[in-house]
Amino acid sequence: MNKVKLGVLGGGQLGKMLIQSAMNFDMEVHMLDPDAEAPCKPYAHQFVQGDLKDYDTVVNFGAACDLITIEIENVNTEALKALEKQGKRVFPQPHIIELIQNKVAQKKFYKANGIPTSDFIEVSGRSDVAAKAHFPMVNKLARDGYDGRGVQVLRSAFDIEKAFDAPGLLENFVDFDKEIAVIVARNEQGQVTTFPVTELVFHPEANLVEYLFAPAHITDHQAKEAESIACALIEKLGMVGLLAVEMFLTKEGTILVNEIAPRTHNSGHHTIEGNITSQFEQHLRAICQMPLGSTATRSMAAMVNLLGEEGYTGTPILAGIEEIMAMEGVFVHLYGKKVTKPFRKMGHVTVIGDTFASLRDKVERVKSTLKVIA
Amino acid sequence: MNKVKLGVLGGGQLGKMLIQSAMNFDMEVHMLDPDAEAPCKPYAHQFVQGDLKDYDTVVNFGAACDLITIEIENVNTEALKALEKQGKRVFPQPHIIELIQNKVAQKKFYKANGIPTSDFIEVSGRSDVAAKAHFPMVNKLARDGYDGRGVQVLRSAFDIEKAFDAPGLLENFVDFDKEIAVIVARNEQGQVTTFPVTELVFHPEANLVEYLFAPAHITDHQAKEAESIACALIEKLGMVGLLAVEMFLTKEGTILVNEIAPRTHNSGHHTIEGNITSQFEQHLRAICQMPLGSTATRSMAAMVNLLGEEGYTGTPILAGIEEIMAMEGVFVHLYGKKVTKPFRKMGHVTVIGDTFASLRDKVERVKSTLKVIA
Repeated sequence: MNKVKLGVLGGGQLGKMLIQSAMNFDMEVHMLDPDAEAPCKPYAHQFVQGDLKDYDTVVNFGAACDLITIEIENVNTEALKALEKQGKRVFPQPHIIELIQNKVAQKKFYKANGIPTSDFIEVSGRSDVAAKAHFPMVNKLARDGYDGRGVQVLRSAFDIEKAFDAPGLLENFVDFDKEIAVIVARNEQGQVTTFPVTELVFHPEANLVEYLFAPAHITDHQAKEAESIACALIEKLGMVGLLAVEMFLTKEGTILVNEIAPRTHNSGHHTIEGNITSQFEQHLRAICQMPLGSTATRSMAAMVNLLGEEGYTGTPILAGIEEIMAMEGVFVHLYGKKVTKPFRKMGHVTVIGDTFASLRDKVERVKSTLKVIA
Repeated sequence: MNKVKLGVLGGGQLGKMLIQSAMNFDMEVHMLDPDAEAPCKPYAHQFVQGDLKDYDTVVNFGAACDLITIEIENVNTEALKALEKQGKRVFPQPHIIELIQNKVAQKKFYKANGIPTSDFIEVSGRSDVAAKAHFPMVNKLARDGYDGRGVQVLRSAFDIEKAFDAPGLLENFVDFDKEIAVIVARNEQGQVTTFPVTELVFHPEANLVEYLFAPAHITDHQAKEAESIACALIEKLGMVGLLAVEMFLTKEGTILVNEIAPRTHNSGHHTIEGNITSQFEQHLRAICQMPLGSTATRSMAAMVNLLGEEGYTGTPILAGIEEIMAMEGVFVHLYGKKVTKPFRKMGHVTVIGDTFASLRDKVERVKSTLKVIA
């Protein structure tokens, strides 16, 4: 494992935290990212600036590596298939990344494999939405959605004019009680582990996870069901690596898969401090043919995304950091992005605690104290 | 704190783990090390190959930094003083590094400041040892001792011929019950925190820490005494940064300071997983004028040094790593040294557990399973 040359498509914060884990195993890590100032640049053994969607760029980048993985799914999968044909190990497998890149294909996969998900209609564009929609519905772009972009709720016929005029889908609006997520890993030997269920709280305007708690406040039965859905998904996909499964817990108590991401994920950042093995180490274990690590909870944890404050764009300044660092059980992770913008993910803060009340107090204090301004 | 340019003298494993912490705060880290293949090289923002004892090299290296620290004490302190005069912040302060570089000066400092330590005699060389020794005694070189080198026990007059023929000291041999260590930190504001006492078990041949447990199996009264000695030491020194204090617990139950190191230390590696704040983050907090972090224990922990196996020199191969990584609560840290040699520190493994018996079982299994060969 420490002899492998790992190539990662994407060099943002997920890649940076992956390097922090890879350092423990003395792995050589190469990174490809379009941004010359990407967070990973100072820490990668090799950093290549280039377009993740360009066939030649990805093939050339992979040539220097033995094992290739991703930290973002919007990459050239044809290039990854070509690298696979050259004998490189590529995880997650390119055809799975391809499937997940397309939200219509994702939904069809769920339906074909008995994975519970909300009903949907495929649409070709805005006029098709107008013809097929009943309300409320969720309109999603088939491709290129990310961090809340490419998803919107259509509440009535008045919203048709803002519907995406591109191929996508209309989903039944799920009147959910909670959004939850399970991170599941599978290695080449077929070993599968899930992390305990996390509970996500979204920012009402930015449609980004604002904070989450783990383990989720759901029944044991619901937790087991969510975990078994995640296991079924990764096994049906036959995927090697880490898969983040975002789910709705409906008001009727049923669980529906919303979306999946075949990589380390924002909903697993708390595992760095909260669990015995972090999601980053687990991904490395999975793709390096190593035994998967224990996912047991060490402490209840909450994670607050540190989003760029509205009204500020430019070189980031951290207001309130000293007060936050004086708090017990508070872990600051700054991503090293050179420019802050409203709602940009600039870092995260994980808090641990013995009681849910103490977690919640810390979350509130972090949210009201720590601001990324410019 | 995330705007500072930190220069570190030394780029070995301590520096590498410091970078892992500094990444969380997006600090720019420059490293100076004589070895072109030093463990830090791939991860430092700037890596400079050069002699830590050369005045010009250190002054030139420091010019690009705002704040300078060390990961090894054998550095040119005159250069650090010159950097201080230029207005750079240097922690630990150069005069303290200078004091600690000389074991005779260290002992005199303890005696002058009421810090309990074994009695000693200053010696100028071998003939002076012959004239002054009673037996058993410990003969230490004043300068350049490291990792057990520069220290030896003289058991009888027959041992005089192997005494160091250089300035040093003779210490009364302490018939100790245990060796323990306390890591203490102090920031510029004068805030002081200690980590819980660790208990060290030495390898009989290599005179290196083979494994340690924390918290130590000593009485609360003894733990408080050890911690208060460490606090007194850092306060009397007026030092800013992290200080490792190695102590003897004698068979009579008294505590004597053995040696100190003004930096992160092997006896604190378990704090990465075992404590809320790691020694590496605590050092960064101390020298960056930040509040010190909580040192509370998260789990009982033990740390096993992964030493190069006897009989093997060359490119390291890790035998038994898969079996170790399948164990629950076992954390592997490989340092990335290109060549293994007998007893060279190639990495460490921290284990956590709920009971002392489970820790001990894991330690034994790690020791008997994981081998660095070539």
